[in-house]
Amino acid sequence: MCELLGMSANVPTDICFSFSGLMQRGGKTGPHSDGWGITFYEGKGCRTFRDPKPSFESKVAQLVKNYPIKSQAVISHIRQANRGGVALENTHPFTREFWGKNWTYAHNGQLTDYQGLATGFYTPIGETDSELAFCWILQEVSKQFPVKPNDMKPVFRFIASLCDQLRALGVFNLLLTDGDFVFAYCTNNLHHIIREAPFGHAQLIDENIEINFANETSDSDVVAIIATQPLTDNEVWHKMQPGEYCVFCRGTIMLTNK
Amino acid sequence: MCELLGMSANVPTDICFSFSGLMQRGGKTGPHSDGWGITFYEGKGCRTFRDPKPSFESKVAQLVKNYPIKSQAVISHIRQANRGGVALENTHPFTREFWGKNWTYAHNGQLTDYQGLATGFYTPIGETDSELAFCWILQEVSKQFPVKPNDMKPVFRFIASLCDQLRALGVFNLLLTDGDFVFAYCTNNLHHIIREAPFGHAQLIDENIEINFANETSDSDVVAIIATQPLTDNEVWHKMQPGEYCVFCRGTIMLTNK
Repeated sequence: MCELLGMSANVPTDICFSFSGLMQRGGKTGPHSDGWGITFYEGKGCRTFRDPKPSFESKVAQLVKNYPIKSQAVISHIRQANRGGVALENTHPFTREFWGKNWTYAHNGQLTDYQGLATGFYTPIGETDSELAFCWILQEVSKQFPVKPNDMKPVFRFIASLCDQLRALGVFNLLLTDGDFVFAYCTNNLHHIIREAPFGHAQLIDENIEINFANETSDSDVVAIIATQPLTDNEVWHKMQPGEYCVFCRGTIMLTNK
Repeated sequence: MCELLGMSANVPTDICFSFSGLMQRGGKTGPHSDGWGITFYEGKGCRTFRDPKPSFESKVAQLVKNYPIKSQAVISHIRQANRGGVALENTHPFTREFWGKNWTYAHNGQLTDYQGLATGFYTPIGETDSELAFCWILQEVSKQFPVKPNDMKPVFRFIASLCDQLRALGVFNLLLTDGDFVFAYCTNNLHHIIREAPFGHAQLIDENIEINFANETSDSDVVAIIATQPLTDNEVWHKMQPGEYCVFCRGTIMLTNK
């Protein structure tokens, strides 16, 4: 259907290596040729590069691959359209302001009978089930928590309970971030890996690129990568289970139901 | 302070020529070195390229300059920071969903005593007077028009009256678009030109580039360009007056108080 990629790190880190692998799946090593996007957080701000063209031949993707933007939270998505045509307004990730922060969302999967989900103040712009589900989540969270609590754990537990409801409507693998926390929810396809010292070599599956993270990092770096399918073939990725969620903060899991 | 650039066209048109001139003002021919951004509409979707780095040396700006994205509505901004530090969250344009569409906003100028403007549901993310004024405008429009009217003229007349109030707080040159309409409001620095057949040559002021629009266009094309200062030196630009506003739709002025 689609592919997801997320990152949470304790120091600003570029995602060029993982992005290089993912982009090949956008029409070359994978069938996901209906657009792609990536959102980088830098402080409270974020910027999204997006293209309705296949990622493996996109000039914008080439820029992102070669231009190391350092970030502590990243979400990326490559699309194989099911609900909603191939168009910029249907291209993930989607970003909305909530509690004075940028919240960014990307979905892998497909829902049925989702049209009745009430989105209240948050009106979808495009035609995807994904954006509608995002608007519904924001609406439900704003009803449950009219004011942002200091402790975000209850918020993410509540979001996980909303994801359980969405999973009943089909396949719902999710990445969601406010720039500080990266939330991952699994229906069937989501893996993660946490890289920390001692760092070693990694070999991409989708492209003939190898990296020695020891040369790119310092000993205190902690970087979590989340992806629908593992991106490297010489590392151990944790396969998430149906209904499992993880909240990453600066590279570390701060909440999970595992 | 800053520079603004906008486009409204009746056919998807690239803005590479005008953008090339504007970008030079971001640290080379002008002092606006505190970031830049540009938003292109493609259908209901839009995409923004943004960089807190000076535009004249930005790799992302190089891409935008050389990669012809065709659009019927564009807003761009290069920044010389006054309110709010140099940071991505303070970099224009700002985009928010309103009435199920993407609304994009960029401001040239500086306001005083703006902190009391009530933004209601629309919380600013950064620290600029500009974004706060944008949130206030959206809040006021949503109160005045709880539902989007079919005729948008009353909406833009109301937005102009809000701009009159903001102009009382300082300098407020504005570009605002929902992808169909491009609204321009002048306090002191805003010019526009409408290019249509017969097309001729144009020479940039800020860079040694000349273009023959006759080679780039068809006879039915109509393209309006709005900029704080004229970008070419061999064409006649209309200088807008204090309090003057224009609403462009597909290259043509559909509403003005001139």
